[in-house]
Amino acid sequence: MTSFSGSSRTQDEYLSPLSAYQLLVRLRIENRPGNLGRVASAVGSVGASVGAIEIAEARPGYLMRDMQVACRNANHARAAVLAIQAIPGVEVIYAADRTFQLHHDGKIEVRNKIHLRGTQELAQIWSPGAVRVAREISEHPDAVWSLTSKANTVAVVTDGTAVLGLGDIGPAAAMPVMEGKCMLFKSFGGVDAWPICLDTTDSDRIVATVKAIAPGFGAILLEDIAAPRCFEIEERLKAELDIPVFHDDQHGTAVVVLAAVMNGLKLTKKHPEDLKVVLVGAGAAGLACARILINFGVRNIVGFDRFGAIYEGRTEGMSPGLEWFAQQSNREGFRGSIGDALVGADLFLGLSRPRVVTAEQIASMAPDSMVFALANPEPEIMPELIMGKARIIATGRSDYPNQINNVLCFPGLFRGALDVAAREISEDMKIAAARAIAESIPDDQLSDDYLLPSVFNPDVPLRVARAVAETALASGHVRPEPPHVWL
Amino acid sequence: MTSFSGSSRTQDEYLSPLSAYQLLVRLRIENRPGNLGRVASAVGSVGASVGAIEIAEARPGYLMRDMQVACRNANHARAAVLAIQAIPGVEVIYAADRTFQLHHDGKIEVRNKIHLRGTQELAQIWSPGAVRVAREISEHPDAVWSLTSKANTVAVVTDGTAVLGLGDIGPAAAMPVMEGKCMLFKSFGGVDAWPICLDTTDSDRIVATVKAIAPGFGAILLEDIAAPRCFEIEERLKAELDIPVFHDDQHGTAVVVLAAVMNGLKLTKKHPEDLKVVLVGAGAAGLACARILINFGVRNIVGFDRFGAIYEGRTEGMSPGLEWFAQQSNREGFRGSIGDALVGADLFLGLSRPRVVTAEQIASMAPDSMVFALANPEPEIMPELIMGKARIIATGRSDYPNQINNVLCFPGLFRGALDVAAREISEDMKIAAARAIAESIPDDQLSDDYLLPSVFNPDVPLRVARAVAETALASGHVRPEPPHVWL
Repeated sequence: MTSFSGSSRTQDEYLSPLSAYQLLVRLRIENRPGNLGRVASAVGSVGASVGAIEIAEARPGYLMRDMQVACRNANHARAAVLAIQAIPGVEVIYAADRTFQLHHDGKIEVRNKIHLRGTQELAQIWSPGAVRVAREISEHPDAVWSLTSKANTVAVVTDGTAVLGLGDIGPAAAMPVMEGKCMLFKSFGGVDAWPICLDTTDSDRIVATVKAIAPGFGAILLEDIAAPRCFEIEERLKAELDIPVFHDDQHGTAVVVLAAVMNGLKLTKKHPEDLKVVLVGAGAAGLACARILINFGVRNIVGFDRFGAIYEGRTEGMSPGLEWFAQQSNREGFRGSIGDALVGADLFLGLSRPRVVTAEQIASMAPDSMVFALANPEPEIMPELIMGKARIIATGRSDYPNQINNVLCFPGLFRGALDVAAREISEDMKIAAARAIAESIPDDQLSDDYLLPSVFNPDVPLRVARAVAETALASGHVRPEPPHVWL
Repeated sequence: MTSFSGSSRTQDEYLSPLSAYQLLVRLRIENRPGNLGRVASAVGSVGASVGAIEIAEARPGYLMRDMQVACRNANHARAAVLAIQAIPGVEVIYAADRTFQLHHDGKIEVRNKIHLRGTQELAQIWSPGAVRVAREISEHPDAVWSLTSKANTVAVVTDGTAVLGLGDIGPAAAMPVMEGKCMLFKSFGGVDAWPICLDTTDSDRIVATVKAIAPGFGAILLEDIAAPRCFEIEERLKAELDIPVFHDDQHGTAVVVLAAVMNGLKLTKKHPEDLKVVLVGAGAAGLACARILINFGVRNIVGFDRFGAIYEGRTEGMSPGLEWFAQQSNREGFRGSIGDALVGADLFLGLSRPRVVTAEQIASMAPDSMVFALANPEPEIMPELIMGKARIIATGRSDYPNQINNVLCFPGLFRGALDVAAREISEDMKIAAARAIAESIPDDQLSDDYLLPSVFNPDVPLRVARAVAETALASGHVRPEPPHVWL
């Protein structure tokens, strides 16, 4: 699939924006007029783009230059390097992937809140000070919420079996994604999160491990655990722990989808109880979206998985989650194709894989239709193909409008839950989070291309946190304020 | 035991240095001449000491003052508050424990190494960047050591059953101590450590849990797990994991004791093979000290536990660890008392409890005797009672010379092990660490009162890390350098 010339790009190259891959090259360029220009031309000839250029070393005969090159992906970057290497008098000293360079030695670290200057601090934070605090907590267990980092700390737990776009790659390979999640927690929510990558895919062991490590954490985020195991693991942990447990792939996605639906309904002046939804992909995220939509008042959903339409009484590929879904959603017992179901539908919600629907099928939907094509990186249908056929189009990608991005939800959601020491994240808290995300865009700014706020809108996590905290307090599912310890 | 006047202090008050307990009081003091003086006198009358004073608020009729008061302990602080409250025209608005205040919301946090400014960084650290790095690790598993935080990260694992001076207080109450350990790791070793406090005391479950969470960590520090469970847990984890596993209560103490013994031998011109050692306390730390001393060449050790002398063939209270110890140490089958064993001994090593030996017994030791009385906070015998009777006296306390403090060992030891991606911490690496600690004091500065360097001597962790890394490299128990990923 690699194409080394700019003229015949592969689909993959079309799909990735230029700048998705930052290449850093160090070049030894002989002092001859026009050499730098030849480098720029070579880069341009493969469709890549020269960014910042710096001189690292200047010698009588040559210059050492560091150059950034914006590319689409690794193959594209290799093509750029090959094109540069072909120039006489130019040597590629090294070529590095900026993303890999950023990941070197990891992306998070531990920081001390108190600077250890001498024996006084040592006595306070270690012996005998910390021992005195430990005794206080052993006598007043609730004090762990005020006298340790527990109250602000989340374990980001995965078994590495369903990592974004890669599937079952194992716990070690999942680390960069989990560290990324921890970074987002800190950056957008001020939450201290640490990755816990589990060397087991056994549900009982995962449950036992998370229960065992829970005392030091204020909440548990489950991430990238494959269905159907993830349902059982989450349900059991929710039942057995008294801190929030939240599988983000399910509920984070569901909250942001609901936020987008809320704003879509405002724009199209439709109501949840009248909405006809076609859901393709009944994995963890799909079923969670179905559940939150049903809790929000949507009545008519027809779901599809790889065995086709999901209906009560279907025998193939059923599970407790699908049974529940079949009962709650497809009330007319529809058994046809996706194409048939889409005729007259108001919302296509895809959480499956590329190219499961055609532009013609989308064109058959009801007026003012919404298409949420969330497969990543390639959506169920590319937005270009259905412009004008669907009114509102959302994807999981940052390079199209209306990105359904979990980052809009989890930092604020956990911030709010931790702020009130919530014991759980209830359905009401999720719906409150969705409403807070939706309402981050004032009604007069809302448009078909501006359904969801930017993840960099600093209002969003604040609004979400406030809404979630208020909902938790109103429901009473919070721990009492820990006593302030004076002496 | 509380004494509210300065005239009849309890032993506890003698044992804690003034300043062990920093009290913060906010006082509303009526504007009348001499009132501040009366406060200072009241504080002085209970033997406490006024520190910094600030004005928080100045009103026509009164001043609000914040005052630091140095006390010995909580009872002493309460006495100071009562004495201040007794003054007419002075009101205590609040009194806070500075140590508790420092612990508020915990002592450690997570920090991002990359600042998330916008979509460019988001694409690099999250999707698609982190996903690309995850794929790289799934294809080249060793890359987890270079492309994630694993290589610099230690899990500080406890079940809260043997917390310094408090015993079995449970995992949540152990948090302040574990967070303190993590702080010391960062401050002295640049190591990122995170507390993992386990809600189980079952060896099988502890082993299973630590194995399950291991993929994200570069090493495991076990802390404050009660004997004899700690032996089995450490042995099993060492056998089953390919990263270092180190129970600090055992081996950290042993390393620092050996460092002190090394310098003690230099001063007294004795040799390990001639040394007669009496070891009181055969718990986790005691047996580890015995092991490292034996590995160092000491042949004659007589150990005692609560059942008396430990000898081969003893039936009461034996365990596999004690059987090994009895075989390796007490070769003459000594069965007498501690007092009998001490006659002519060169080293008393106490890891037990206060007052297990008398000054007369210490006086019966060989010339140039060494007494390491490490029970904390009250040593086996108070140094004041044996000055002149023993030549070298060491304790676990910071307010006497020669403090045996694990902080001298673990930050540098792990720094060195992580730097070379060691697969284990071998006996050789421990002895190298002890030698590096001992050699941090130049021979010409060594004295009976300066056996060990200060924990704030920045040379110590550097020397320990270098020695440990070199020993690990020489033994070959290290992972190969991970490949540098260019493209």
